[in-house]
Amino acid sequence: MNLKIKNALVSVSDKENIISLLKIFKKHNIKIISSGGTYRAIKELGYSCTELSKYTGFEEMLDGRVKTLHPKIHAGILHDRKNKYHKNQMSKHNFPPIDLIVVNFYPFQKVVLKSRSPKNIVENIDIGGPTMVRAAAKNFKNVTIITNKDDYRPLIKEIEKNKGKTSIKFREFMSSKAFGLTAYYDAMIANWFNSKLNIQFPERKTIFGRRLSNLRYGENPHQESSIYVSDYNDKNLGFKKLHGKELSYNNYNDLFAGLKILQSLKGKIATVVIKHANPCGISVKDKPLNSFKSAYACDPLSAYGGVIACNYKMNKKIASEITKNFLEVIVSNGFDKESLKILKRKKNLRIIDTSNFKYKNQISIKSFDGSFLVQNKNSRIVKRKDFKCVTKLKPNKRELAEIEFAFNVSKYVKSNAIVLCNNFSTIGIGGGQPSRVDSCKIAIQKAKKFQPKKIINSIAASDAFFPFADGLKLLVKAGIKIVVQPGGSIRDKEIIRFADKAKIKMLFTSIRHFYH
Amino acid sequence: MNLKIKNALVSVSDKENIISLLKIFKKHNIKIISSGGTYRAIKELGYSCTELSKYTGFEEMLDGRVKTLHPKIHAGILHDRKNKYHKNQMSKHNFPPIDLIVVNFYPFQKVVLKSRSPKNIVENIDIGGPTMVRAAAKNFKNVTIITNKDDYRPLIKEIEKNKGKTSIKFREFMSSKAFGLTAYYDAMIANWFNSKLNIQFPERKTIFGRRLSNLRYGENPHQESSIYVSDYNDKNLGFKKLHGKELSYNNYNDLFAGLKILQSLKGKIATVVIKHANPCGISVKDKPLNSFKSAYACDPLSAYGGVIACNYKMNKKIASEITKNFLEVIVSNGFDKESLKILKRKKNLRIIDTSNFKYKNQISIKSFDGSFLVQNKNSRIVKRKDFKCVTKLKPNKRELAEIEFAFNVSKYVKSNAIVLCNNFSTIGIGGGQPSRVDSCKIAIQKAKKFQPKKIINSIAASDAFFPFADGLKLLVKAGIKIVVQPGGSIRDKEIIRFADKAKIKMLFTSIRHFYH
Repeated sequence: MNLKIKNALVSVSDKENIISLLKIFKKHNIKIISSGGTYRAIKELGYSCTELSKYTGFEEMLDGRVKTLHPKIHAGILHDRKNKYHKNQMSKHNFPPIDLIVVNFYPFQKVVLKSRSPKNIVENIDIGGPTMVRAAAKNFKNVTIITNKDDYRPLIKEIEKNKGKTSIKFREFMSSKAFGLTAYYDAMIANWFNSKLNIQFPERKTIFGRRLSNLRYGENPHQESSIYVSDYNDKNLGFKKLHGKELSYNNYNDLFAGLKILQSLKGKIATVVIKHANPCGISVKDKPLNSFKSAYACDPLSAYGGVIACNYKMNKKIASEITKNFLEVIVSNGFDKESLKILKRKKNLRIIDTSNFKYKNQISIKSFDGSFLVQNKNSRIVKRKDFKCVTKLKPNKRELAEIEFAFNVSKYVKSNAIVLCNNFSTIGIGGGQPSRVDSCKIAIQKAKKFQPKKIINSIAASDAFFPFADGLKLLVKAGIKIVVQPGGSIRDKEIIRFADKAKIKMLFTSIRHFYH
Repeated sequence: MNLKIKNALVSVSDKENIISLLKIFKKHNIKIISSGGTYRAIKELGYSCTELSKYTGFEEMLDGRVKTLHPKIHAGILHDRKNKYHKNQMSKHNFPPIDLIVVNFYPFQKVVLKSRSPKNIVENIDIGGPTMVRAAAKNFKNVTIITNKDDYRPLIKEIEKNKGKTSIKFREFMSSKAFGLTAYYDAMIANWFNSKLNIQFPERKTIFGRRLSNLRYGENPHQESSIYVSDYNDKNLGFKKLHGKELSYNNYNDLFAGLKILQSLKGKIATVVIKHANPCGISVKDKPLNSFKSAYACDPLSAYGGVIACNYKMNKKIASEITKNFLEVIVSNGFDKESLKILKRKKNLRIIDTSNFKYKNQISIKSFDGSFLVQNKNSRIVKRKDFKCVTKLKPNKRELAEIEFAFNVSKYVKSNAIVLCNNFSTIGIGGGQPSRVDSCKIAIQKAKKFQPKKIINSIAASDAFFPFADGLKLLVKAGIKIVVQPGGSIRDKEIIRFADKAKIKMLFTSIRHFYH
């Protein structure tokens, strides 16, 4: 049912574009109640407005903490216009209806970012605003609620179309947005408290996001999808698209996989090639070009149509290498002018600058049909001191550094994972297999196919222990000289004996890196 | 700082155990304000209490919609006890401080489950309660907020320990829980509105969960984890543990993977074997025992330590088969007495009855460092009419049914996925590979290893098109006679030509099933 708006209460922290509302209110003879900064702004724009304290007859108190929390306001919003009993009570008290609420909150996250004082942050938690928003949203049968300045235009259109009225459809939709906002607002606050008190797994957890964009489709064309960000400052997640089509669901997913790996290689010059959210090449070198070439060489066949993620500034030489191949997305920590010129020749290549991207180390969530598993990130980087050499032959210092690289990148390959490395580059990645021996086979096949010479004396990292010696036997046969794995199998002794007999070096980490 | 509680406001929908509070309040001379049902309950228990309307001097109106939304209540909660200016205002109005708020909300989801009337559901949205909770939680420096009857005992302990006072630590912790609740409550409401209005991707999305349990650890022992459920009725997700240790993170993850697959095989007798969240055997048969045996036979080596999920009632014969092998979890749609007796002999086997589990078809979420991708589920089941035969040789009716099975299960194998099937059972699963030809190799190797005779004339399903003929060539060479795939490659013509030459049948679905 369309309902005439007679009285509106306006209280906005962001005053942009209220003039558009004032004009339409005047045209349709809608009276305004307001207070504080909004009241002053309306007056300054030359429109008439009743001050809230005059309206309620109750002077605001406690520095504005108690202002709208008054029966005249809330009965004005909440009464059922069709209920005779309600109408009688309203007349008795001389409380007029309030038909439209326009409220926006001061963004809580902005305060959190600006202020380091918890006292100041808590002071900024809005109590009166959300109460009015919730009351109006509940009573959408009778009241219109606007919580976002982007909705001024639809509101104006609605009022114009319906000659001063709004439709129930419009009111209900705005109500869904209003509860979306109050939920989001309190989720931010709850998360702030939890983070302050170091509570990772609270009794009730709310994960909140602002829609960054609707994606063309999801993992497949018949699935719909959107991407959400939780950070107030997240303009496009800190990704700057310099060229190419919009990122797809699978592009984002691959890009995230790439950034995760790069985070663990901070301070080094690293390149990652991603395909189907799996790495098919990771390399750390002294020079970007070497790092790119070595990462790409791990599996050039799979890299076809893949995503490249680098933590250095893209240069001309690498750009030229890249354009020799078909890739979907290039992600880099900045691009120099010449490299961009070269890369932009590829019409469909998506070029993403992540130099403004910041890691937040948030917990990870795995959803299943309305339920979800929450865990903190597997951010454990295994250091040299964590390695325990269990064989007679011991690694030297240089080898230890390589072992560190190999084991830490195995964390990003889906379990069971076996990663073969040579000179700080993967040369064979076997993952996603239900049996470890199969992952060994895949890793060996890859290395044999693309860089057979490099298998000799290379390093194999396993994300979990070897349940049997079978996988290890294959690795040794292929020429691997060092194996790093968590250890912990009931057959460890047998496996160590085999390693000693084969004259290889084997190290245990005691840290498992399952990843699914 | 410890603060003395003089006045408490109590308004609880669940009256259980308020007697414990009344006793401690009396002991420490804490006065009570209350109204409605809570007021009556307190009086009936023989305790004194001031009625809220008498306290404010304002009679509640609109069937209780406006009752606590009054300056005397909110100034009582919100004023800063250290601020002289605030204190003066409070004296002037003769508003006493309110130091403790005990509120619980009527569970919104309970209403949603009980009532089919949106009007009644909306009527149950609490406005006054959350406002008091938020006000008190904001002013935790001065006020204690209790939102859950489980916190009565800690409150009583706190008051006893501190002689009628509460500590700032206690108040802040309770405040974090309070905002956790208001966020959760509004997230439920927002999601209800969105579902009513069929909005899958709202501007602001909040995903909410109640902690079901803390898990021993996450994906790895060095990660912490909890599981959350969103449904009011979710007692243990509808899972009933009949035997064995608590489920781990990886158990849940595997179990979810199994249930997802079983959902797509509704109405059939199906068994799924899961390892590392991947299926390593899926079979649909006329009898449960055959289904179990065939699923297990696909990769008995990988099944070691795996999860079995069945959509039928477990019986004695299958239980005997199961106990011959080492498995971690058995999930079944009920268990008969004899089967349980047999299975329980395995001390460490987790036995889960999912006969009360209900699918909810919620959207799927993929998180990355505070951001998340949302998409609706890939619930598309490709039917016979969607298949287009592109070769000269055409499948018969029985083959079509098998093709349907093969293509639909390929959806649950991580991309790139190749699934070989024979007689409604997988005989080779190749997945999680960056290159499709590798997935073909793995699937063939599996089938050759465990059931070589069954490859001849079997069916291969591919979750996406073949970019080149290489994978197809391997499949044909291995003996596959039917291939089903989405089609859509620029080399489709060449691939069809090859299929015709090889005298196999090939069908296109136009539906892709990427899964990462």
